[in-house]
Amino acid sequence: MKKIFNVAIVGASGLIGRKFIEVLEKRRFPVGEIKLFASEKSRGKKMTAFGRSIELKTLDENSFKGTDIVFFSAGKNVALKYAPIAESQGAFVIDNSSAFRQNPDTALIIPEINGKSLNQYKNKIISNPNCSTAIALLPLFYLHKRYRLKRVIYTTYQGISGSGQRGIDDYKRCENGLIAQFFPINPTKNCIPKIGGFSKYGYTEEELKMVFETQKILGLTLPVSATCVRVPVLNCHAVSVDAEFEKEIYDEDVKSILKNAQGVRLADLPCQTLADGKDEILVGRIKRSFAFNNGLSFYCVGDNTLKGASLNAVQIAELLINSGRLC
Amino acid sequence: MKKIFNVAIVGASGLIGRKFIEVLEKRRFPVGEIKLFASEKSRGKKMTAFGRSIELKTLDENSFKGTDIVFFSAGKNVALKYAPIAESQGAFVIDNSSAFRQNPDTALIIPEINGKSLNQYKNKIISNPNCSTAIALLPLFYLHKRYRLKRVIYTTYQGISGSGQRGIDDYKRCENGLIAQFFPINPTKNCIPKIGGFSKYGYTEEELKMVFETQKILGLTLPVSATCVRVPVLNCHAVSVDAEFEKEIYDEDVKSILKNAQGVRLADLPCQTLADGKDEILVGRIKRSFAFNNGLSFYCVGDNTLKGASLNAVQIAELLINSGRLC
Repeated sequence: MKKIFNVAIVGASGLIGRKFIEVLEKRRFPVGEIKLFASEKSRGKKMTAFGRSIELKTLDENSFKGTDIVFFSAGKNVALKYAPIAESQGAFVIDNSSAFRQNPDTALIIPEINGKSLNQYKNKIISNPNCSTAIALLPLFYLHKRYRLKRVIYTTYQGISGSGQRGIDDYKRCENGLIAQFFPINPTKNCIPKIGGFSKYGYTEEELKMVFETQKILGLTLPVSATCVRVPVLNCHAVSVDAEFEKEIYDEDVKSILKNAQGVRLADLPCQTLADGKDEILVGRIKRSFAFNNGLSFYCVGDNTLKGASLNAVQIAELLINSGRLC
Repeated sequence: MKKIFNVAIVGASGLIGRKFIEVLEKRRFPVGEIKLFASEKSRGKKMTAFGRSIELKTLDENSFKGTDIVFFSAGKNVALKYAPIAESQGAFVIDNSSAFRQNPDTALIIPEINGKSLNQYKNKIISNPNCSTAIALLPLFYLHKRYRLKRVIYTTYQGISGSGQRGIDDYKRCENGLIAQFFPINPTKNCIPKIGGFSKYGYTEEELKMVFETQKILGLTLPVSATCVRVPVLNCHAVSVDAEFEKEIYDEDVKSILKNAQGVRLADLPCQTLADGKDEILVGRIKRSFAFNNGLSFYCVGDNTLKGASLNAVQIAELLINSGRLC
């Protein structure tokens, strides 16, 4: 049995790429060789990972030979082109983009929720969920297990880092009095109720991701609605969740369910600066939703660069090792 | 028939007090004498209103003699003590606090919605609604008129100015690197999911105001849920509204209803800096709510110091004049 694994990171110089390295290091992932890939403009630069100085390369047809597992965070188009190449060269792929999430043959995994389903997929490309979905669905799942979710409405407060380094750069530009170039309006002075392009039914792409991914990860067709809003906070996403359940709810049980939930921490006042850099999703403001018979509402916040991206991806890789598929 | 009215403003030096003066001036309210009241610490200072320099006074038992109409924005306790005194001295009172809103004998008015009900109340104290309620309920009302509201969930993005001058001062203190004194955590770096103290059922006072006032203003007992969050934006409140209706909805009608709605303006991207200083509520992101059968979701933003406070109060005063009650 192989004890170390050759790892590649695509989009290594980006915000999430750098977080992949941090999380792999922190969790002592059994790394053998490491390859770091970036776009043309970063080629030749060096980054440090696992104590080694590694040169950034650009992708080509042979990039993944001898690689066991590749973490992609380079957008949809790069993933669509290169993830199948990595797979054909024998590597597992964990892709942070939305490229394959809707593919019925592709697993979409939050380990605490549907980690066990991973073995049902033959495909070696595995999708990492959308950041807000991961953050909101983790606590919601534990309540669903007990009370059976009937319908859910998400309303988000998403930090600037969710739009990547170019979003952060634009935010800082606006802090210095310049005009927004990436955002449609000054993101330091506005909540912007549009994330991603417009799609069907008047929803944005981000909102439809939350709808679709909730259904796919829970394996249920249930009514899900979402409104996604960018807020003037640098990092972390918060989500206000209003849910209706099939079964009768007992207030005292709800807190104990969430208190004992893996990856979740109860907080009196779940706020971004408290969640920043933390693995857990902070959950608070738990109350009956007056809108429904068996309704619950809660407010949660998590680090979108961690559980919303890199941490969840590394947890998937650990699952591949623990289940013996990556060996 | 009296053509001009003696006006008093209580809390005149505060954020909303100053807005009362601005709005009265802008709308050319037929002002006779003006009295401005403030707390002890502002006594003797002067403010300009309607081109006159007026000395700020503190309240006493005889403050309202000869006054026709008093605008209160000095908090609940001042209103509870002095509004009845003003009434007993013959003045109409429009109170911006929550002091009397739940009183069945007190009118709670958004003129475009239930202005006609004002004449059913004998009481001369009239309550101005909570800021977020006014902003969200105005567009929702027009849809309710057509489709009959069945249930509604509010999720808010409330600006710092909603907490008054002390909130703004604290925000600016934190912008300069100091520690928050008024807010429980740095309001420049966090969305804070708690506005007002905690009340019954795990709701905050602000949330229960939205629940109760929606029902009172529409004159309906329907399921209303609310989650209120302070966001790092100086002025204006945004609300994401998810509503279920009795009747079938036609997408093309929804836009035309809101396009023709008084006090409402359609906006592709309703954001705070676009609503700041404007009388209208900007409404956009109109979409079917997947959570409900006849569901609609929209996102609106309005200036909490205007339609959320001073403008609505002055509109109530104009209603008193136009209906002949104030004469």
